[in-house]
Amino acid sequence: MAYEFKQERRIEFAETDMAGIVHFSNYFRFMEAAEHDFFRSLGFTVHTTEDGVMQGWARVHAECDYQRPLHYGDTVEIHMIVREKGSTSFGYEFRFRLAGGGPEVARGRLKVVCVARGPGDDRMRASEIPADIAAKVEVAPSELIETTEG
Amino acid sequence: MAYEFKQERRIEFAETDMAGIVHFSNYFRFMEAAEHDFFRSLGFTVHTTEDGVMQGWARVHAECDYQRPLHYGDTVEIHMIVREKGSTSFGYEFRFRLAGGGPEVARGRLKVVCVARGPGDDRMRASEIPADIAAKVEVAPSELIETTEG
Amino acid sequence: MAYEFKQERRIEFAETDMAGIVHFSNYFRFMEAAEHDFFRSLGFTVHTTEDGVMQGWARVHAECDYQRPLHYGDTVEIHMIVREKGSTSFGYEFRFRLAGGGPEVARGRLKVVCVARGPGDDRMRASEIPADIAAKVEVAPSELIETTEG
Amino acid sequence: MAYEFKQERRIEFAETDMAGIVHFSNYFRFMEAAEHDFFRSLGFTVHTTEDGVMQGWARVHAECDYQRPLHYGDTVEIHMIVREKGSTSFGYEFRFRLAGGGPEVARGRLKVVCVARGPGDDRMRASEIPADIAAKVEVAPSELIETTEG
Repeated sequence: MAYEFKQERRIEFAETDMAGIVHFSNYFRFMEAAEHDFFRSLGFTVHTTEDGVMQGWARVHAECDYQRPLHYGDTVEIHMIVREKGSTSFGYEFRFRLAGGGPEVARGRLKVVCVARGPGDDRMRASEIPADIAAKVEVAPSELIETTEG
Repeated sequence: MAYEFKQERRIEFAETDMAGIVHFSNYFRFMEAAEHDFFRSLGFTVHTTEDGVMQGWARVHAECDYQRPLHYGDTVEIHMIVREKGSTSFGYEFRFRLAGGGPEVARGRLKVVCVARGPGDDRMRASEIPADIAAKVEVAPSELIETTEG
Repeated sequence: MAYEFKQERRIEFAETDMAGIVHFSNYFRFMEAAEHDFFRSLGFTVHTTEDGVMQGWARVHAECDYQRPLHYGDTVEIHMIVREKGSTSFGYEFRFRLAGGGPEVARGRLKVVCVARGPGDDRMRASEIPADIAAKVEVAPSELIETTEG
Repeated sequence: MAYEFKQERRIEFAETDMAGIVHFSNYFRFMEAAEHDFFRSLGFTVHTTEDGVMQGWARVHAECDYQRPLHYGDTVEIHMIVREKGSTSFGYEFRFRLAGGGPEVARGRLKVVCVARGPGDDRMRASEIPADIAAKVEVAPSELIETTEG
């Protein structure tokens, strides 16, 4: 069972803005990329189309608290933790820190719902988490979540 | 005194993703653009450099709840409301709805802090809201905020 | 028959980078947005899905020459000109200038091919320009194209 | 002396659009990221501020030819080649292919000029390539460039 994932990425020039720091909207892309690599590490993909049914994970809530800026060339470590698991949804937390034991720079959360669409119906509807995914992903132990609150 | 602002924008192709809808990170860019046009409507700019001092508005918190997807070509109305005003910070809320009286599709919040940097010091520090801005921007009346909670 | 289109847009904060100017990749988004509004002005949409066939316009070539930087808050005028028209493709040129008669700041080109995909075949194939579009869009007169070369 | 660089990156969800493929503007971000990692591999950084002088590399021309689409999850190899070297500028070429010996999917070019700004002057001016960079970066041998034309 898996409940956390770590990923590093280096900040690119195009991710900065005229204030000389990473634009705040990019942290949401970073969270999503970590989530997707977590799925990939378990052998899953986050977006499938089969027999005309598209299945994915709709974002229903996203948030981020920014503590220190990130700059061009920084390597940031993103530590993702599974905080909540429902029949159709997951709640994730993401702690950003400078790689190599640096200070925390931001902390974010996503709530995602498993959705399906089609065939012959273009509306998205909530859908049970597929059994193979539900079997592999669990909520992190409370000690880990508690440090998260610290 | 001003406490709200409305803006419309049409969704561009590059703002969509392979799920066929607007990528969730873009709502944060939309919020910021509305905030900046609110400032512009009052005669202010959000980012100044003078005598080697750069002044701007750091984002310390951002969040969004997504209720319905937005699609390419949709015109979305963004209604920005000032919810909080401190000595160095503002709290904003943003209600997204399809233009022309459509349903609400998302609701977001930003907390921003007035910051200065330099001269000769590259760290950002919180700074009092400039007097001319503080004199023109106020918290919205509670009736408006309450509908926001609804 | 239509062969040109003008559009203004104001530069947003998120479109700048740490050099304090608009990141060069954004000009390509701006070109595409002008192209799409040109289509919209004629009553067309650039991306359709019908009976499982998705039709769109694949970019096969894109280029831009940058003469002067664009900054946050600038209003840029984008003048799009149809330079080439084939059985399955269009060639467009885009002249960027500061609005209100300012100097040219950049000049770009796109070559796009009409493509279809599906049903039951996920590969894109070149496809004749739909008759209604071919009937309304033509190559600009040579005088206009020649100034373009100037 | 260095004249080429290879880099792999995996396509992220946020880089796709509603056509289900990577948005064409992103290839320009990918080229720039490869260029910057090439510089980093040589011990240089592409953007410096010293004694109030900001030095960087302005893009004066960018182009890309798209042969095949890239999809979410693809790993793309970007092969950068130095094609031209002037007293103030470099010309780079970028060949994109699917990693692991896959077919070429796109080919792009950038022309960049070394620029400086300040102190006390906000205009960018062309500037000689710094001696340490000029000493390490050279034009690729013609055999390599010729395959590029192939």
